[in-house]
Amino acid sequence: MANVPVQRMSQLMAKTLRDDPADAEVLSHKLLVRAGYVRRTAAGIWSWLPLGKRVLSNVERIVREEMDAIGAQEVLLPAILPREPYDATGRWDEYGPELFRLQDRRGGDYLLGPTHEEIFTLLVKDQASSYKDLPVILYQIQNKYRDEARPRAGILRGREFLMKDSYSFDTEDEGLARSYALHREAYQKIFARLGLDYRICAATAGAMGGSKSEEFLAPAEAGEDTFADCPNCDFAANTEAIAYELKPVDASGVPAAEDIPTPDTPTIETLAASLGVPASATLKNLLVKVDGEIVAVGVPGDREVDMDKVEAHFAPAAVELVTETDFATRPDLVRGYVGPQGLEKVTYIADPRVAPGTAWITGANKAGTHTKNVVAGRDFEVGEYVDVVVVQEGDPCPKCGTGLVLDRAIEIGHIFQLGRKYADALKLDVLGQNGKPVRVTMGSYGVGVSRAVAALAEQSADEKGLCWPQEVAPADVHVVAAGKALQTELALDISEKLAKAGARVLVDDRPGVSPGVKFTDSELIGVPQILVAGRRAAEGVVELKDRRTGEREELTVEEAIARLTA
Amino acid sequence: MANVPVQRMSQLMAKTLRDDPADAEVLSHKLLVRAGYVRRTAAGIWSWLPLGKRVLSNVERIVREEMDAIGAQEVLLPAILPREPYDATGRWDEYGPELFRLQDRRGGDYLLGPTHEEIFTLLVKDQASSYKDLPVILYQIQNKYRDEARPRAGILRGREFLMKDSYSFDTEDEGLARSYALHREAYQKIFARLGLDYRICAATAGAMGGSKSEEFLAPAEAGEDTFADCPNCDFAANTEAIAYELKPVDASGVPAAEDIPTPDTPTIETLAASLGVPASATLKNLLVKVDGEIVAVGVPGDREVDMDKVEAHFAPAAVELVTETDFATRPDLVRGYVGPQGLEKVTYIADPRVAPGTAWITGANKAGTHTKNVVAGRDFEVGEYVDVVVVQEGDPCPKCGTGLVLDRAIEIGHIFQLGRKYADALKLDVLGQNGKPVRVTMGSYGVGVSRAVAALAEQSADEKGLCWPQEVAPADVHVVAAGKALQTELALDISEKLAKAGARVLVDDRPGVSPGVKFTDSELIGVPQILVAGRRAAEGVVELKDRRTGEREELTVEEAIARLTA
Repeated sequence: MANVPVQRMSQLMAKTLRDDPADAEVLSHKLLVRAGYVRRTAAGIWSWLPLGKRVLSNVERIVREEMDAIGAQEVLLPAILPREPYDATGRWDEYGPELFRLQDRRGGDYLLGPTHEEIFTLLVKDQASSYKDLPVILYQIQNKYRDEARPRAGILRGREFLMKDSYSFDTEDEGLARSYALHREAYQKIFARLGLDYRICAATAGAMGGSKSEEFLAPAEAGEDTFADCPNCDFAANTEAIAYELKPVDASGVPAAEDIPTPDTPTIETLAASLGVPASATLKNLLVKVDGEIVAVGVPGDREVDMDKVEAHFAPAAVELVTETDFATRPDLVRGYVGPQGLEKVTYIADPRVAPGTAWITGANKAGTHTKNVVAGRDFEVGEYVDVVVVQEGDPCPKCGTGLVLDRAIEIGHIFQLGRKYADALKLDVLGQNGKPVRVTMGSYGVGVSRAVAALAEQSADEKGLCWPQEVAPADVHVVAAGKALQTELALDISEKLAKAGARVLVDDRPGVSPGVKFTDSELIGVPQILVAGRRAAEGVVELKDRRTGEREELTVEEAIARLTA
Repeated sequence: MANVPVQRMSQLMAKTLRDDPADAEVLSHKLLVRAGYVRRTAAGIWSWLPLGKRVLSNVERIVREEMDAIGAQEVLLPAILPREPYDATGRWDEYGPELFRLQDRRGGDYLLGPTHEEIFTLLVKDQASSYKDLPVILYQIQNKYRDEARPRAGILRGREFLMKDSYSFDTEDEGLARSYALHREAYQKIFARLGLDYRICAATAGAMGGSKSEEFLAPAEAGEDTFADCPNCDFAANTEAIAYELKPVDASGVPAAEDIPTPDTPTIETLAASLGVPASATLKNLLVKVDGEIVAVGVPGDREVDMDKVEAHFAPAAVELVTETDFATRPDLVRGYVGPQGLEKVTYIADPRVAPGTAWITGANKAGTHTKNVVAGRDFEVGEYVDVVVVQEGDPCPKCGTGLVLDRAIEIGHIFQLGRKYADALKLDVLGQNGKPVRVTMGSYGVGVSRAVAALAEQSADEKGLCWPQEVAPADVHVVAAGKALQTELALDISEKLAKAGARVLVDDRPGVSPGVKFTDSELIGVPQILVAGRRAAEGVVELKDRRTGEREELTVEEAIARLTA
C-alpha cells in the first residue's frame, strides 16, 4: 500500500459536535454525526466526510479481499437499470413503492437497482454457453437504492447505501450448495476481520424468492431484526424464520363441543376473565383479506399474529385487515365471536400450536356465545399450517426445547440459495455435459458495506465515543499536540516519521484549541492509539494511550515510533 | 498491496468475440466489447466485466493517489440528490433534459447528480465557519448521470459514468488560483501515469459558469471535441474557446456606401458568383431569436456561425433560428437581403473579423439589392463583438499568428475557476481575518475515470487489439498454455509463482482452445507481457513476448520469472 499522507485536523473537513443531532435516535447515528464522519443530505441520504469515507473504504477493501479469495470475480454493473428484465421476473411491480422508478428523455422506464439478480442473470446468459463456463461467482461493490417508507437510524437504513452483492451460477444443486458454503465462509472471515460480533441465523427468503437462506446478524440495541438464540445448543434464527414442527396430540378424552353463553366477551381478555381460564386455553381467529378473499388465522389466545409472517406466506398477494364494511357484507362472521367450526367460504390457516387434537374455547359464530371443547381436526379442519405467531422470549428452541433468548440485531449479511427462479424467468440455460440445455441454479449474497460501518460503531462505541478496530479505523494513530508551538512541532514531526514508516496518521494540530477539547475529540473520533505530545515534549517524552482500555504509558519519541510501527 | 489471486481464463467471465458489435462506430467501443471488458446493458449504460473493472480500478487508484498527494480529502456524497439546492442555483431548470429527475414515494423531487457543485457548497457551509477552516479541496470518485440525447461511442459518452470530481474553497482569488494550479499539476501527473497523450487547452466554462477554465484533451479520431494546436508556439485551445482580439482598421479611403442591383442572389454563393468577388468580401447576417427577440449575427460571408458559441454567449437564454412566421411579422427583414445598416429593433452582434473600419458588401434590406462599401462603425454599429465563427484549419494562432492545426480529441479532464457563482446562490460565507463575513470562491475539477479507459484504449490499441500501459493493464503478465496437459501444468505452475512474487497474472488455461486462438485473444486483450508455455515446455523453456513491440525471447522458466518480477 502506498504511504498515506498525514491528515492534519487543522485542515480536515470534519467538524466535531458537542451535542447529539436532534433527529438522532440510535447510538451510531449520534456518534457518526458528532464525530464528523457523516452528514445528512436528505431523508435517508447521506454524505460521507473524510473520516467516514476512510472507514467505508477499509470495510470495502476487506470485503473485496475475502471475495477475491474465494475466486469471485469483481464486476461493476450499472445502478440505473432498464425496466424490461424486472418485468420479466415480476419485480417491477412486486417491489412496490420501495423501488425508485424514473424515465429518461425518451420516456423509457428505468429503475435504480435495489439488487441486481435480473441483470446478472442476463449477463451470464450473454457470457456463458456451456457447463464448462460454470460455476462462476460474480460480485460488485456498488450503491443500491431502496425508497424506504421510514428511513431511520442514520446510515443503518438509508435509501442509498453501499452494498457488496454477489451471485453464483451453477448447473447442479450440489454446486449451488458449494457456492453457498464458500460465501458462508467468506462472510465469517469478513465479519471476523471487521471485529463484529455476529450470529448466523436461519432466515426467510423474503422478496428474493428461493429456498435456503441465512442472515448474519450483529446484536445491537439499534437493530431492526429480532433474533432468537438458544442458550443450550447452536440454534439461532431470525424470529421471522422460526417454524415449529406440527405435533398432533391425542384428543380421545375430550368431551363433545358445547356452546356456552358468554355475553359481552368480544375480546380474549374479557373472555378469559369471564370464564376464569388462561388466555392460552382460547383460540383467537384473526380475519384478514388476501387479494380480497377472507382468510381466518388461528393462534392460541395468548399469542400475537406476526403480520410480516402472514404477508410473507401469501406474497406476492396483498394482505389487509378486514373492515367494518367486510363484516357488514358477511353476516356469518360475527365480530368477536368467530370460530373455525362450521365457518364457510373462509380459508382457515393456523399456527402449528393449533395442532390436530388440541382443544380450545373459541367463538360460536353467534353473538354472546363461545364453544368449548372445540378440537382441531375433529370439529374443524385447518386448511394449512403456517407459523404465524410472534416469537416470545422463553419459547422452546425448535432444536432442543430450551427456552429461547431474544435479542435485537442489525442484518449485516444475507445469503440465499435462489434456485432457478430467475433462471426460469429469464431462460438462462447452458449446454450440459450430455449436449442438452441445463437450466442454471443461482445464489444471491449480500453484505451491507455502509451498514457494517454503523454496526461496528454500535458495537464498539463506549460512553466516550467511537472506538474502531485497527483494520477499520480511519487512522492507525491519532497524534495530539497538547500545548503550544513546541508540542505542535513535535507532533507534526512524529506524524511525518510515522507516516514514512507506513502508519496512517491523523494529527490534531488545530491552533487555539485547548488540550482538553482535543482529548475529548480524540476519544470521540475513536482511533485505536492516541499519542500525546504534552507537558514533557521538551524532554522528548510523549504519552501513548490505548483508546479502548484507557491505559497510558510515557515513552520517548523513539520508543513510541518503534512501538507504533512494529 | 495484497497478492492478487491468479485469474484463470477457463473461469473468467469474459467471452472474446471475433466480430465487432454491429452498433459500434469507434475503435475503443469495438475492442472493449470484443475483448470482453464491457457489455452494453441499455443505451449509454454499461456493465464492466472482470477485466474492464480491473482497468477501471487501476485508473481510479492512480487518480486517488495523485489527489491525495495535493492534500485533497476524499469524501463520498450521494448520487441521488434533493431538488432544492439545484433550484437555488437555477440548474434544476437550466440543465434541461440532460438531467435525470425522479420522485420518491412521497412525491419529493430528486435528481441524479450530473456534477455536485451545489451539494459540496452546502457541505462546506455546514462544516467551515472561519477563514482558518480554508482552503480546502474535497474530492470523490463516483457515478455521475447525464441523460445524453445521443449516447454514443460505448463508454466514451455514457449516461452513467465514473468521474472524479473535486471542489476547492478559498477566501481569496489568489487562493483559488493556487488550488487551480494544484489540480493542473495533479492532472498532468495522472495523465502521464496513465500513459495518455494529451494537450491542455483553453476552454469555455459552459454550463458550470465561472471564468478561467482549461480542458485536458486526448487526441483521438473518436473524440467529440475539436481543438486547435499551434505548430509554432504553445497555444492550444478547444475551438469553441478561441477568441480573437478586435483589430480596428483605417477606413478613411473607403468610398461612401452604394446600393447595387443584385437580382436573384439570396445566398452568399449566388451573390459572390454574380459580382465576381470572393465570399470573404461579403457580410453574412444570420438571424436568430434569443428568448423571442430578433438578433442578427454578422460574420464574413466565407465563414460559418458556430451555434454552440452563440448559445454559450446568450446562455441561459434559449437561442433558436428565425422561421417563416418571424419574417412574415417583420417586413423590414428582407430574407436574403438583410444588412446591418439602417436596421431597427434588431440587436446586432458580430464576429471580431467584422472589426471597426472593415468594409463589406451586404444586403440593402430591399429585395434584389445589396450595398457595397458598408463600413463597420461608419455605416452601422455593432452592439457587441462575440467570437462566433467556426474555427478552420489554417486560421491564425491568436498568440503568434501561425496557421492552426485542427484535431479531434476526447475530453479527459476539465478544470474551472468557478469564482463565487455557487457561493452567491447558496450564501457560503466564512468569518474573515477582520471578523467580517467573506464570500468563498470556488473551483470545480473533473476527471472522466471511465472515459479515460476509453481514451487509453483509443490511443494505445493497434491492429491486433488493446495494448495497455503496465500500470493500467488488467494484469502484469498473460501466461498462455499453448499445448496439452504438460503446457497447462507448466503455465499454472509459473502463474502461481509469479503471483506469489506479487505479479498480477492472467493465465489462459482454457481446455480445447487452440494455441492460435489463445495467441489472438492474448493480443486482443492487451496485457503488456505475454508468456507462452509451448513447444519447449518439456525442457523448461518458455517464450516471453512484448505485446507492443512483438519482440520475442526464449527463456528458461527461472529466467522468465526473475525477469517478470524484477
